[in-house]
Amino acid sequence: MANAIVSQSGGPTGVINASLVGVIEQACKQKEIDNLYGAIHAVAGIVKEHFIDLKQIPAGTLERVAGSPSSALGSSRDKPDAAYCEKILAVFKKRDIRYFYYIGGNDSANTCHIINEMAQQSGYELRAFHVPKTVDNDLLVTDHCPGYGTAAKFVACALMGDDLDNRALPGVKIDVIMGRHAGFLTGAAVLAKQREDDGPHLIYIPERPVTMEKFMADIEACYKKHGRCVVAVSEGICDTDHVTWAERLAENAERDAHGNVQLSGTGALADFLAGQVKSKLSIKRVRADTFGYLQRSFAGLQSSVDAQEARQCGRLAVQWSMKEDNGSVAIKRTGTGINYAADYFRTDLKNVAEKTKSVPDEFINAEGNGMTPAFVDYALPLVGELPKTEYLGTYPKV
Amino acid sequence: MANAIVSQSGGPTGVINASLVGVIEQACKQKEIDNLYGAIHAVAGIVKEHFIDLKQIPAGTLERVAGSPSSALGSSRDKPDAAYCEKILAVFKKRDIRYFYYIGGNDSANTCHIINEMAQQSGYELRAFHVPKTVDNDLLVTDHCPGYGTAAKFVACALMGDDLDNRALPGVKIDVIMGRHAGFLTGAAVLAKQREDDGPHLIYIPERPVTMEKFMADIEACYKKHGRCVVAVSEGICDTDHVTWAERLAENAERDAHGNVQLSGTGALADFLAGQVKSKLSIKRVRADTFGYLQRSFAGLQSSVDAQEARQCGRLAVQWSMKEDNGSVAIKRTGTGINYAADYFRTDLKNVAEKTKSVPDEFINAEGNGMTPAFVDYALPLVGELPKTEYLGTYPKV
Repeated sequence: MANAIVSQSGGPTGVINASLVGVIEQACKQKEIDNLYGAIHAVAGIVKEHFIDLKQIPAGTLERVAGSPSSALGSSRDKPDAAYCEKILAVFKKRDIRYFYYIGGNDSANTCHIINEMAQQSGYELRAFHVPKTVDNDLLVTDHCPGYGTAAKFVACALMGDDLDNRALPGVKIDVIMGRHAGFLTGAAVLAKQREDDGPHLIYIPERPVTMEKFMADIEACYKKHGRCVVAVSEGICDTDHVTWAERLAENAERDAHGNVQLSGTGALADFLAGQVKSKLSIKRVRADTFGYLQRSFAGLQSSVDAQEARQCGRLAVQWSMKEDNGSVAIKRTGTGINYAADYFRTDLKNVAEKTKSVPDEFINAEGNGMTPAFVDYALPLVGELPKTEYLGTYPKV
Repeated sequence: MANAIVSQSGGPTGVINASLVGVIEQACKQKEIDNLYGAIHAVAGIVKEHFIDLKQIPAGTLERVAGSPSSALGSSRDKPDAAYCEKILAVFKKRDIRYFYYIGGNDSANTCHIINEMAQQSGYELRAFHVPKTVDNDLLVTDHCPGYGTAAKFVACALMGDDLDNRALPGVKIDVIMGRHAGFLTGAAVLAKQREDDGPHLIYIPERPVTMEKFMADIEACYKKHGRCVVAVSEGICDTDHVTWAERLAENAERDAHGNVQLSGTGALADFLAGQVKSKLSIKRVRADTFGYLQRSFAGLQSSVDAQEARQCGRLAVQWSMKEDNGSVAIKRTGTGINYAADYFRTDLKNVAEKTKSVPDEFINAEGNGMTPAFVDYALPLVGELPKTEYLGTYPKV
């Protein structure tokens, strides 16, 4: 018997706690595991030995944890270097921690990988498993990431309502959605469309750089056709020279520990785009919203498919760690449409570490301003049930 | 038998369509009503005679309408003057419209009132009824407004998740919420609090002007105490000289037809506040979100209490118009807490027209930066069931 540790890293999601509960419930079943520590605030909590005893959490509490957004163990944006990782390993050795479960994105997979290699080099047996999470859906190997379906559901419900609002009071509406490099979450805006002329009418993602001229021409054409225009834009939208529009704007942009410019938590890009449309197209009613943190942490809005899969990923990381040295849990789609089903497999940490995935070409329309039916087929089963809405203004006149 | 007309005005809400369906189902039962016209885009649609036949809408469609956010008949920001109202009355006479149901806020009640008086003066019998709606909850006479509970639910769920997000990655988080003059919706942020130290830790509403110095001092004190701070701020927050902070910011502020400065659909106030906190308090992680249109038009997130009451208000407007010349439907609370119940009564249009209500003193804490338990007792039954969340970071260390 040895001890195990679990932690959550990076930006929270709506189901990262479901993965945590999956780890806990499986760890409680494994006779190989003595204590199960929860490290508070990820790697920062590990080096400080800020641990809680996860085997003591009552079952009812665990179910509420699984349904709660954000990271119940806290998170951290620290990106550990070699010295930091050595400290982590020292704590593991001191506490006889032999199982390390790390729920996070590609940076977390990398941290997991580095510590696993360090342990091997020092002859310390450590099973290191990564449980995938990200609203961006940009991890390699896996078909999709836990966390994506729930965030995508938020975006779809938001756009659905926003499009009806725009029908009621027509104009141009621009919604800025999370996604620095990958457009999967912004692309989910297309799931809001129920009628032929529903918005979002235009969708721009980082995978398709666009000039301001093209952006304006698209909106103008849509406004002429429909008398209104709803636009979904990734925060990472960039010009054809691959400089993001947000970077152009942000002279004193705040950068996080990973060297990324802070794009969320500011309305500057949305306001800039709205201002451009107002002045260049002379359209009076132009509004912009930045969905911000709501899209990753809204309470009470999980995709049930996403929540189930996230939990299963947590369980499997523990199961597989009994036999394998390291791994990241990946999802394979085994059915489509209403027959959607998924299976799971292990992949080496190094296959997921650091690298990211982009939206594939077949999911993006030829114009580069919308998503294809193939993307809808991909994303819709992950989001689950969506509301059905009605608008009456297009009924025949009497 | 005579014809009836119904329309929806002003900013959409999550249940204004439930009121519409209430009007339709009751009108279909009244033998006094021949055609029921739906005017598309409110008064603008009336003068253009852009009408649809609401008796032809299938029942299944109507149920989806009742569950859809935004205004299914479209809306308008037109504020009719005397000449405009004369045109409306001319259309009513031409079409033999004797029943006018107008779903909207205090401006709509006023329009309804003016047209009703004009009809009387010209000897044309017209029953004019106002059905209340507003996310701001600022109408007089009624205990609360249909539309408020649903928007409040959105705000509560958003803050609940946002507070957990802020626990995971601590810092200062500022959320700007709708409410130009009345703080009821921003106040609903308090409903997110489930634990003693849960955010929002500070709530600022237009009823309590605050200096930037006080705002900063409050945040600093909270940050020192909790190591983090979640703040809910009304878009209409103003300084002690009663100039709103948004107005100070907006040199070229857009004004709508009612002379109001546009506060929603821009992230400028949130970004300004975040910038102030960053620079004056030297706190690194400061984020701000503006909830924007999502809080009034999010699909699939109705408060069931709110939706039922909104529908009943629509039904009663039609019933009462069979006997009375004019009126606005008002709600009276007849039970509290888990015994919450409501009854309805008619009030004269002139009692609701134009004027607005503010958050009463007993709902605001002495410091002017939070809501009282009396407010929670008032607002919670209107929101209905809220998710229960968990955070584990405060569990004892091992």
